[in-house]
Amino acid sequence: MSVTTTDSNATAPTQFLQGRLETYAYRRVGGGIKRPLICFQHFTGTLDNWDPAVTDPLASDRDVILFDGAGVGQSTGKVPTTVAGMTAHALDFMDALCLISCDVLGFSLGGMVAQQMALERPSLVHRMILVASAPRGGDDIMHLEKPSLAKHLGDPTLKGFAVLQKIFFAASPSSQAAGGAFIDRLARRKEDLDTPSGTDVAAAQIAAFREWERPNAASLAALSGIQLPTLVVNGVHDEMIPVSNSYRLAEHLPNAVLLVYPDAGHGALFQYHESFTRHAAAFLTSDSQFAPY
Amino acid sequence: MSVTTTDSNATAPTQFLQGRLETYAYRRVGGGIKRPLICFQHFTGTLDNWDPAVTDPLASDRDVILFDGAGVGQSTGKVPTTVAGMTAHALDFMDALCLISCDVLGFSLGGMVAQQMALERPSLVHRMILVASAPRGGDDIMHLEKPSLAKHLGDPTLKGFAVLQKIFFAASPSSQAAGGAFIDRLARRKEDLDTPSGTDVAAAQIAAFREWERPNAASLAALSGIQLPTLVVNGVHDEMIPVSNSYRLAEHLPNAVLLVYPDAGHGALFQYHESFTRHAAAFLTSDSQFAPY
Repeated sequence: MSVTTTDSNATAPTQFLQGRLETYAYRRVGGGIKRPLICFQHFTGTLDNWDPAVTDPLASDRDVILFDGAGVGQSTGKVPTTVAGMTAHALDFMDALCLISCDVLGFSLGGMVAQQMALERPSLVHRMILVASAPRGGDDIMHLEKPSLAKHLGDPTLKGFAVLQKIFFAASPSSQAAGGAFIDRLARRKEDLDTPSGTDVAAAQIAAFREWERPNAASLAALSGIQLPTLVVNGVHDEMIPVSNSYRLAEHLPNAVLLVYPDAGHGALFQYHESFTRHAAAFLTSDSQFAPY
Repeated sequence: MSVTTTDSNATAPTQFLQGRLETYAYRRVGGGIKRPLICFQHFTGTLDNWDPAVTDPLASDRDVILFDGAGVGQSTGKVPTTVAGMTAHALDFMDALCLISCDVLGFSLGGMVAQQMALERPSLVHRMILVASAPRGGDDIMHLEKPSLAKHLGDPTLKGFAVLQKIFFAASPSSQAAGGAFIDRLARRKEDLDTPSGTDVAAAQIAAFREWERPNAASLAALSGIQLPTLVVNGVHDEMIPVSNSYRLAEHLPNAVLLVYPDAGHGALFQYHESFTRHAAAFLTSDSQFAPY
């Protein structure tokens, strides 16, 4: 197990870890005495999609560990078509890191993996942050065919990260400006880049969204068994996974604080990175059994 | 204008201020260089209903000013039957204090007064905190006839503050324990007590709720014109003014952060007073034009 760390995801070397199931590409940022924070990534996102303005401040006194799930980026294997399948690989990766307790940050699809992990192995997760995510059985999850999203995803002029400025941020000039700053930060990384996701990754992950979205009252109820302190975060204008899903998470998770940002969409954590990392650090650092920080 | 201040609402002397319309009972806690925070009170609440665990920490570096609206406690006059009428008195009180800029904390009914003030005189309010409140045209506002509330309000064994433990807090043992601590804190004040509200106060304020609750799409839309930074706070299990009203506030106010607490009802700010005052102070102290803190 490597111990190479660095202070920014703009420069952290990509490393590889052999699990029981696959070999995982990962990066480790920062370091310190606090419990490590493992980050679960969004739809088609790779190691290069983690905003250094989010990872780096959180890494000032803890390890922030980013990884590619099976079949994503430079990790081996195939992308599972269910969140449970992705969770099996996340657990495999964390077991290979010899982690027995950690905090998790799940963004969008990653927040679904975090919930599944909290259900399957609650002893592993100390505190959980779910950003722009949804409960199993949630509403209107990642319907990329919606006109509000399709017009950007089908725009051939939006190359590379540029489409994220459109779909992760609200339409207002202020949110779009924050989106421009976000993609500029992602572009700071010039070397040792990850492998961008192709259509096979997207198709498998979309299948997982459809399976996760199936109406399922029992799964909503199952959230009430997750006692771990949770911070639920969203932008009020999220078109990809509407904020109502964050409301449902906070209503069913018995120990969750909900924080919703104005004038922001799916990428509220990137838009308000200073506020988000301040709240996240305060939440993670609390030693209370209750979520409020 | 008096300048008597003290460090706790458990001991702050009740003072009186002559306005253009009425004479208002008020208290001033703390002091400091920061902008004063004016607090607008809940249904039938008087000066004695402000929890020192909320007022006092916020007063460590600012004046926290509590007052009775017209016809409430020891203020002269009649209780208006509309929020707009109450707002006229609140403005009268603030004008008599010679305030040209302040922050406001509105709890429940008080949050409606705060919204009305932000619409009528936006120049006066710098930042606004709305706790357990509702927009005009909101849902299920203060229907005390609901079984979940009526069973407590009609219980003759619940004297004085005791009913607040039942209706401001969730049913869980942890929330009820917090409710017990809350009413113990209110009971710390032994002298110079305010006049409890009678049925005439309750009836007028209920009339104001009914007027505020009338479906009114234009009023929801009017919230989009309130640009001032706002912090919206609620408990997820609020039976008096359901949390969906806080969702609507955060969705329509263009510059509002939403913070929702778990395992808590209408009185989430009292239950999580340490967290609430930390968040409120951070929010009030921010000098950004945007709400996120």
